[in-house]
Amino acid sequence: MGTDLKDQLTKHIDEAIAMEEDVVRMLESMIETTDDVDIKRELREHKVETERQSQRLRERLEAHGAEPSLVREAGGVMGALMKSIVDAARSEKAGRNARDGYATEHMEIASYQLLERIARRAGDEETAEVARQNRGEEEAMAARLDRHWDRFAELSLRDAGVTAVANAAAQ
Amino acid sequence: MGTDLKDQLTKHIDEAIAMEEDVVRMLESMIETTDDVDIKRELREHKVETERQSQRLRERLEAHGAEPSLVREAGGVMGALMKSIVDAARSEKAGRNARDGYATEHMEIASYQLLERIARRAGDEETAEVARQNRGEEEAMAARLDRHWDRFAELSLRDAGVTAVANAAAQ
Repeated sequence: MGTDLKDQLTKHIDEAIAMEEDVVRMLESMIETTDDVDIKRELREHKVETERQSQRLRERLEAHGAEPSLVREAGGVMGALMKSIVDAARSEKAGRNARDGYATEHMEIASYQLLERIARRAGDEETAEVARQNRGEEEAMAARLDRHWDRFAELSLRDAGVTAVANAAAQ
Repeated sequence: MGTDLKDQLTKHIDEAIAMEEDVVRMLESMIETTDDVDIKRELREHKVETERQSQRLRERLEAHGAEPSLVREAGGVMGALMKSIVDAARSEKAGRNARDGYATEHMEIASYQLLERIARRAGDEETAEVARQNRGEEEAMAARLDRHWDRFAELSLRDAGVTAVANAAAQ
């Protein structure tokens, strides 16, 4: 494996670990601010899943003789997603949580698409497989969010203090 | 239409306009930093599409007797996506552009899922239709990005100065 390519691979694995650690904290914040029992349960399940993903990536990093630096990309997307989640405490939690969560899942999917290919080019099939497996879980989570838009819209209106939803259609 | 619900609807339309205006600027920055001819062309086409989407939303806002405030959600996700795109000038443009672009498309999709439902509950079928139409275009753009992961990975490695990609598989 060329040194440059191996450096890029470990850098991408390291960044994926930092991303998943951020997602764990984001999910914890979402779980706290979610009242809906079903959605809360799905978020909790995805938190456990996310912790497993992080562990798989750590094992791959160790296989390359490296340790997680948990380096942050200053001002990156994830930092802002985190901030947005925290800000969401202000109003309309459900709508913003859903939107930010959906964007985050797809940022993770994109990251794993790239990691899988870089690992494969570096001849590291195990990391490519971890990337593929983690991506599958993110895609499943995104599909679960996709089934809830009706509920997210209702919860968003409720958070905004709109209660007379049923009346609207009559006018 | 209840006042509260109408307020929420115009607020969501207004936020969608601000989002699309941000996306236009983000696409301009991506176009500048993209060398790949095919991807550059797709970004340009999506910029034109995005300007049309913004215009449709403005017409719906005007139909409700309101004007765009182009209000920003301070510290929101979009602001950070923008910052990330600008920061991407530093290194690995292609990989970060692709990841941020993919996350952004899905944030737009999520926003339109919510807007469509809130408009429908408010009895505003025209806005619901604009939301549905704009979402369809975002989904098509996301599908285009999905076809390019091989190329994004290659461009990402090239931006990082890795040129000996072809050699890696042999080791």
